[in-house]
Amino acid sequence: MPGPETAPLFEEARRLGIGFCLGYAELAEDGGARRRYNTAILVERDGRIVAKYRKIHLPGHAEHEPWRAFQHLEKRYFESGNLGFRVSDAFGGRIGMCICNDRRWPETYRVMGLQGVEMVLLGYNTPIHNPPAPEHDALSWHHNTLVMQAGAYQNATWVVGVAKGGVEEGVHQMAGTQIIAPSGETVALAVTEGDELVTADCDLDLCRSYKESVFAFHRHRQPHAYALITGTAGVVSPDQAALIDPSLGR
Amino acid sequence: MPGPETAPLFEEARRLGIGFCLGYAELAEDGGARRRYNTAILVERDGRIVAKYRKIHLPGHAEHEPWRAFQHLEKRYFESGNLGFRVSDAFGGRIGMCICNDRRWPETYRVMGLQGVEMVLLGYNTPIHNPPAPEHDALSWHHNTLVMQAGAYQNATWVVGVAKGGVEEGVHQMAGTQIIAPSGETVALAVTEGDELVTADCDLDLCRSYKESVFAFHRHRQPHAYALITGTAGVVSPDQAALIDPSLGR
Repeated sequence: MPGPETAPLFEEARRLGIGFCLGYAELAEDGGARRRYNTAILVERDGRIVAKYRKIHLPGHAEHEPWRAFQHLEKRYFESGNLGFRVSDAFGGRIGMCICNDRRWPETYRVMGLQGVEMVLLGYNTPIHNPPAPEHDALSWHHNTLVMQAGAYQNATWVVGVAKGGVEEGVHQMAGTQIIAPSGETVALAVTEGDELVTADCDLDLCRSYKESVFAFHRHRQPHAYALITGTAGVVSPDQAALIDPSLGR
Repeated sequence: MPGPETAPLFEEARRLGIGFCLGYAELAEDGGARRRYNTAILVERDGRIVAKYRKIHLPGHAEHEPWRAFQHLEKRYFESGNLGFRVSDAFGGRIGMCICNDRRWPETYRVMGLQGVEMVLLGYNTPIHNPPAPEHDALSWHHNTLVMQAGAYQNATWVVGVAKGGVEEGVHQMAGTQIIAPSGETVALAVTEGDELVTADCDLDLCRSYKESVFAFHRHRQPHAYALITGTAGVVSPDQAALIDPSLGR
């Protein structure tokens, strides 16, 4: 990266002094093995690639399920990223990335928040229709906004969520690109499903008032009570929970 | 508990077959030491105390700060609770509790979500004015709703947040009692600062559609990437982060 297809993008962005975040399907060679990741890179205004992120939370399923209106085979075609949720000093601040479904998980933002992130960049291609749970469809917009605003506020960071909109291969994508301040307020929003340029002046210093008060992590967080978060992936019974975190014993 | 002041509450509730959650300042004897906690208990419809919670996230400050319009000395008068975020099988479901500032922390809901919680009960006395950050005051309602709705949705649980409203000892409390469904939708809301009875039919089975799809934790969570959440209370540099979680190394 850049390859022949993306070199013109890199060249034009560098000429204009514009940085960007670019998502792509990555074929990686790790110790002789071929691995496939859902990847994003962060490119500085001078054209340098300053960070790479490999998507950690892969939604969907691993096998073809013919009853679905369309497939969602991320668990088949990718593996969970092995680079963690890193942050990078770039664009005059501390920048992190995640991808699509990652935005629904508070852990995503928190790991970056604990590294002082000031802006999280993410892209998402989210169908409005959720085949296993169509009762969620009407709430797509609410859920999308809710998780990104909460991630921004609870970690005192800007969040820039860039969406695909409109119909692609018969699938209606939800759109809703938005830029969210550390206050949890959406300050810029796409209002159509077509191509739009959504911009905002993002003063990274606005993070400070939250990072130094309600979310001054070093004064207020209590990791002694969080062991379950890293101690299990799935739901456990209260008795199993007490084996992971003895303070939960009764 | 119940003591002489609360016995009439317990008696009347039992007579009516109504359970409740009650917050109070607790003076505890732990191994000979006197300890003070900000505590809530869960009382079943037959009057039994089925769970106790001691507040974990204590906001505010530990020393008198005369510049403030009012003091917020929770860190002086209480210590962080030592019972974790437990859940209890009660009221035909799995119930958890937290208190006030706990609701702003995604870890609170997640620890209970990982134990299959179906309803989180919490009370809060939150001033509209935040002395160290008055620029947040106008957003009190947004932040309050945001964190509780996100906690509900991201953990597929009902959240019942019960607020103090109106002016007490010269401090204006934000009110905003609400009952939130696992969809992240507020289904009942107090609309004044006075006494109100806010009710909703809370079908705990509505949790299932979220617990089994987008938030099927065992299929989708990735604790390999969460080490920082339990590995540090406060913000660390990216280099320090890599010592805690080697996958963050560069």
